[in-house]
Amino acid sequence: MTEIKVFCPATIANVSCGFDVLGLALESVGDFMTVRKIPEKTIRISRIVGQNLPLETEKNVSGVAGLALLAKSDYVGGFEIEIDKRIKSGSGIGSSAASSAGAVWAMNELLGKPFSKLELVEFAMQGELLASDMAHADNVAPAIYGGFALVRSYDSLDIIPLPTPAELYATVIHPQIEINTSDSRKILRTSISLAQGIQQWGNLGGLISGLYQNDYNLIGRSLHDHIFEPIRSVLIPGFDEVKTNAIEVGALGCGISGSGPSIFALSKGKHMGQRVADSMKETYSKIGVPFQVHLSKVNTQGVKKIA
Amino acid sequence: MTEIKVFCPATIANVSCGFDVLGLALESVGDFMTVRKIPEKTIRISRIVGQNLPLETEKNVSGVAGLALLAKSDYVGGFEIEIDKRIKSGSGIGSSAASSAGAVWAMNELLGKPFSKLELVEFAMQGELLASDMAHADNVAPAIYGGFALVRSYDSLDIIPLPTPAELYATVIHPQIEINTSDSRKILRTSISLAQGIQQWGNLGGLISGLYQNDYNLIGRSLHDHIFEPIRSVLIPGFDEVKTNAIEVGALGCGISGSGPSIFALSKGKHMGQRVADSMKETYSKIGVPFQVHLSKVNTQGVKKIA
Repeated sequence: MTEIKVFCPATIANVSCGFDVLGLALESVGDFMTVRKIPEKTIRISRIVGQNLPLETEKNVSGVAGLALLAKSDYVGGFEIEIDKRIKSGSGIGSSAASSAGAVWAMNELLGKPFSKLELVEFAMQGELLASDMAHADNVAPAIYGGFALVRSYDSLDIIPLPTPAELYATVIHPQIEINTSDSRKILRTSISLAQGIQQWGNLGGLISGLYQNDYNLIGRSLHDHIFEPIRSVLIPGFDEVKTNAIEVGALGCGISGSGPSIFALSKGKHMGQRVADSMKETYSKIGVPFQVHLSKVNTQGVKKIA
Repeated sequence: MTEIKVFCPATIANVSCGFDVLGLALESVGDFMTVRKIPEKTIRISRIVGQNLPLETEKNVSGVAGLALLAKSDYVGGFEIEIDKRIKSGSGIGSSAASSAGAVWAMNELLGKPFSKLELVEFAMQGELLASDMAHADNVAPAIYGGFALVRSYDSLDIIPLPTPAELYATVIHPQIEINTSDSRKILRTSISLAQGIQQWGNLGGLISGLYQNDYNLIGRSLHDHIFEPIRSVLIPGFDEVKTNAIEVGALGCGISGSGPSIFALSKGKHMGQRVADSMKETYSKIGVPFQVHLSKVNTQGVKKIA
């Protein structure tokens, strides 16, 4: 195999109570990427459609992630990448992670899978470092492992794949404004109150239990973020209204996707996910900011080969 | 049934990464309590052996917890309590929780179980409030539910029982010095760094996943407390040495039980738990502080009827 075409899923990081440690992958929102072997030991980005992003290897997240892989590989050649970019930069649903994760996953396939998923996450994190000045893993881990993924530790990277209840659907509204991840991080304090911490880890424990127990009600009760959402949500037009309405129509919970501006809700069943999507559209139509709405199952596979 | 005798388990709160939200119950360490119906609508503590504790209802944690139950009950009579106190006050293994939880659990049995476990935890928390100026639930919840119990939320009390891997053993060393829970809390800061918070909730997520997956290695990797242990452990003679040695002989992890001074370790299998107990004894013999060591399976039943 010298060429592979992959689907690179969009991802929702944080998932309310799992700041920097939790993310989930989407099934029907993502990029496409074609990666082929080339004789020269280099990464060449030959074509990007859909977004205006740099073709220079060192300035492109997939290029940087690919170089990290090449540096650890004994493969004497390199790779050429074509990206069909469907996820907008700065949307908050893991645009950079999709490219980083997709690139290294595809390269690993072409090389006969010499690297573990954990190693692929480490390579892809180099792309995240370029994109947001922080090598966070809460988008690239679910992009590579699929489903929900927990980053237990960054010190010695430890990714724990979590189970995904079968009827869990995510609805995402992406207001067409851009919030840069590093800007959105700068407004956060570097300390939190002990009381907030206790709330946060109680809820994360509840959410993870809910995933293991297929307990949608418990998942819903746990989807709270008392620390970051109140600060970051002021940057997102209509956040409170979208959230209130989504929960009123029946969403399990609703919060900021990653660092925003996208807002996500989780629901039990596709029908409810669609009702939440309709509610989000209705709310945003009144606000006057252009938007896109996505409805997706949770993707349990991660990046996948499509050709 | 007009009289019941119960076993009231000792408990380990926090379990390293679950400050204020996680606890586990022990099988072979605990108090005994006899509760009988009396015609007067009051709680009378007729006898306490083993510890010098107040017999006055309002000054005794089981009395206060019992009064909380009586206040919500339509039962026209009251209860008399005899306590055979084996867990020392201020030991850090839930002495007050055992009395509070045992009392209300026994009363509920005698009344034909009108109250849910969650309600019993709420009553027992009144005992905790008396004992430590804080109505925490991370000892009384596992005492009543058994096994590991997560306090997802205090705002609207939400207890999540967690699975207990069958071969999990706890070893506890209790240095015979007393640390008051409220004193041990006063030395903690009211804020933590964001970086510490992220480590803590990553580890709690990992520990809970480990319990669900029966993954002893993951449980061990998650048993870290970077926030409170460095502060509280200075009050515990030989803490670092006990911990280092316990992990060296094969414990999965080791930390402070509740607010101390007891130190706990978790191990896979009774044989390993015993090795850890031997290591703790050896370490403490050199320190010159009197101590007790307990080895116990995790109790999956909580308070239980023995006669």
